[in-house]
Amino acid sequence: MREEEFDSYLITNGVSIFYFSHFYHMVTERPATLFVELDNDPIFMGPLLEADHLRMQTPLIGDCYTYLDYPGEKHPMEKFAEWIKDLGYGKAKIGTDNPAGASGTMGYVGPKLNELLNEVEFVQDGQYLWDLRLIKSHEELELIRESAKWGNLAHSYLQEYTRPGLYDMEVNLMATLEATSAMKKALGSEYESVKGRAVSAGFRGQIGKKSAIPHSIDLNKIIREGDVLVTGAGADIGGYGSELERTMIVGRPTTKMERMFNVMCKAQEAAAEAIKPGNTCADVDKAANKVIKEEGYWSLVKHHTGHGIGIQGHEPPYLDQGNDQILEVGMVVSIEPGIYELGYAGFRHSDTLIVTEDGCDWVTYYPRDIESLTIL
Amino acid sequence: MREEEFDSYLITNGVSIFYFSHFYHMVTERPATLFVELDNDPIFMGPLLEADHLRMQTPLIGDCYTYLDYPGEKHPMEKFAEWIKDLGYGKAKIGTDNPAGASGTMGYVGPKLNELLNEVEFVQDGQYLWDLRLIKSHEELELIRESAKWGNLAHSYLQEYTRPGLYDMEVNLMATLEATSAMKKALGSEYESVKGRAVSAGFRGQIGKKSAIPHSIDLNKIIREGDVLVTGAGADIGGYGSELERTMIVGRPTTKMERMFNVMCKAQEAAAEAIKPGNTCADVDKAANKVIKEEGYWSLVKHHTGHGIGIQGHEPPYLDQGNDQILEVGMVVSIEPGIYELGYAGFRHSDTLIVTEDGCDWVTYYPRDIESLTIL
Repeated sequence: MREEEFDSYLITNGVSIFYFSHFYHMVTERPATLFVELDNDPIFMGPLLEADHLRMQTPLIGDCYTYLDYPGEKHPMEKFAEWIKDLGYGKAKIGTDNPAGASGTMGYVGPKLNELLNEVEFVQDGQYLWDLRLIKSHEELELIRESAKWGNLAHSYLQEYTRPGLYDMEVNLMATLEATSAMKKALGSEYESVKGRAVSAGFRGQIGKKSAIPHSIDLNKIIREGDVLVTGAGADIGGYGSELERTMIVGRPTTKMERMFNVMCKAQEAAAEAIKPGNTCADVDKAANKVIKEEGYWSLVKHHTGHGIGIQGHEPPYLDQGNDQILEVGMVVSIEPGIYELGYAGFRHSDTLIVTEDGCDWVTYYPRDIESLTIL
Repeated sequence: MREEEFDSYLITNGVSIFYFSHFYHMVTERPATLFVELDNDPIFMGPLLEADHLRMQTPLIGDCYTYLDYPGEKHPMEKFAEWIKDLGYGKAKIGTDNPAGASGTMGYVGPKLNELLNEVEFVQDGQYLWDLRLIKSHEELELIRESAKWGNLAHSYLQEYTRPGLYDMEVNLMATLEATSAMKKALGSEYESVKGRAVSAGFRGQIGKKSAIPHSIDLNKIIREGDVLVTGAGADIGGYGSELERTMIVGRPTTKMERMFNVMCKAQEAAAEAIKPGNTCADVDKAANKVIKEEGYWSLVKHHTGHGIGIQGHEPPYLDQGNDQILEVGMVVSIEPGIYELGYAGFRHSDTLIVTEDGCDWVTYYPRDIESLTIL
């Protein structure tokens, strides 16, 4: 808490609530917030259906103020305003990630909290919550490392099951089922998936020509001889994840495939070499881009080099040529420069790296070379 | 377009973009918008990585203005502001779901579009986009009906595979794999999952005592004799879905289980009877609540009776005692009153219904009675 600046703090983002309280919930149209006082346990204000859930998950939350449901005979935001007044903060200075009081998804409508509490000085301070999460603790790093192991297993099954004639969706599910069973047998009933998904591997639509579409999400493609495939795998360990993506080739790679594959790998290695404390995010992106430009593939670049990862699949810091954020020990990022030729194929590996005193540690360790990733 | 009111319209919500353009994309930290003029095809403003993707998915979008990536050497929101000025709307009246110009997820930070374009009159008009979606077209209803068929299949496999000693996650994945394979064989390669997930069935943590937690999401529970289970199943057909949830009992139900199960069913039937044009959403919720109160279980209610469904799993109208929205032909809702006793069990079915001239049609048709849902 920023004691010197605020009288209290209101957090509306679901992931931030998890970060501070270890309570993970499905974010819906129903507003839910964590109200943090200087000298009390944080108070949850949200829908009744989360009250028992919260008690089961965490001892870190104090009082729990609930409304029956949204929109209610009295709107939840009006209740939030009354509760905050009753707590004595009707004329206070309150830091928050969102002065409106609700993230506002799924057609949510309602009055803004800062308009209902017009004597409160709300200070929008959302970036602070993200900045806090930039550097991971030892415990967070251990969860991310553990996630990478199970992602690696799932990816191994994915590669084993991939062969011409199969549908992408079936391969995804077979690999995910196999990895889930193995993970359960290894970790036993102690393990719980915080986010409702344990471990998975799969394709997300980047099959054959569609491998050239970085954020393809359509499924139901038959895998064929000659296809370039871009994969993904990961696992939820205590709410934390890792990112592993590989370019695989079905059948003998052509010379063109080999060339593009190798340029992509070289760019990824250049990015990794630039990851060290003191360098900026921009330095990493520029290092990868420099390789791709020198090799003559700049016109096939569709996105920057990577992003932070932790509780969310994408989070700051973003490895972008416009981002002057300095890398520090304990940050965790993906590195995944890609090249994409429309109508032909796309090439991208993604690995998860931790910034260390000496440079970086590769958390993901699945083979990256073309021989290992060719399916014959 | 509300021609009489606005010069142009800016849409930032990813689902609304899909509704108007048939372009579905992964919403990330990268801002993406649809800019709608009165007499031109809508213009996409967003990240470069979506440009080719968009062309593959839809002919409904005209120009495509892209930035390389976020945050960029020049921030995407500054580019949006320039593009809007260049299009001649620097002093216009623009309707929008979000004057800030970006939904702002995953740690996104940036200037607000309405502050960059301080001569534009932005009018926040988000509810309009949701109101348009309240009544489904014939085509939308067909997609929802088709979704229910495959959800029904997946749920059949789920029930077949559920037995004491198995882990929830494995049962989920086995049923999902089986249903996915069958769906693929039935629909062939014409079928594509818009959202990256075809058909699925599973538990979401509501196993045994945890069935009393309506939005439980933790997995890795062993299913045991005597457990009450709450399930879920659905399928993505052209971007539309349906909702099917059932309370199942492993082993002979006790008298108490039967009683709670039957009260829940009776409340759901009362809700369905209240679904007809001219009644309000509140009428439906009150009809279900009346049964539960009369039966003496009001203290076990944790949420309202249901929600709209279509492109999103939750969307307006919300079947809540505080919602005076009048039901009209073509609206689609879930009905799912539940009762939840902490430390014991929870009971909830969810069905998807279409409001018709005569009342309503049940789109989901999986058996609802306790005999059919008992696993012996």
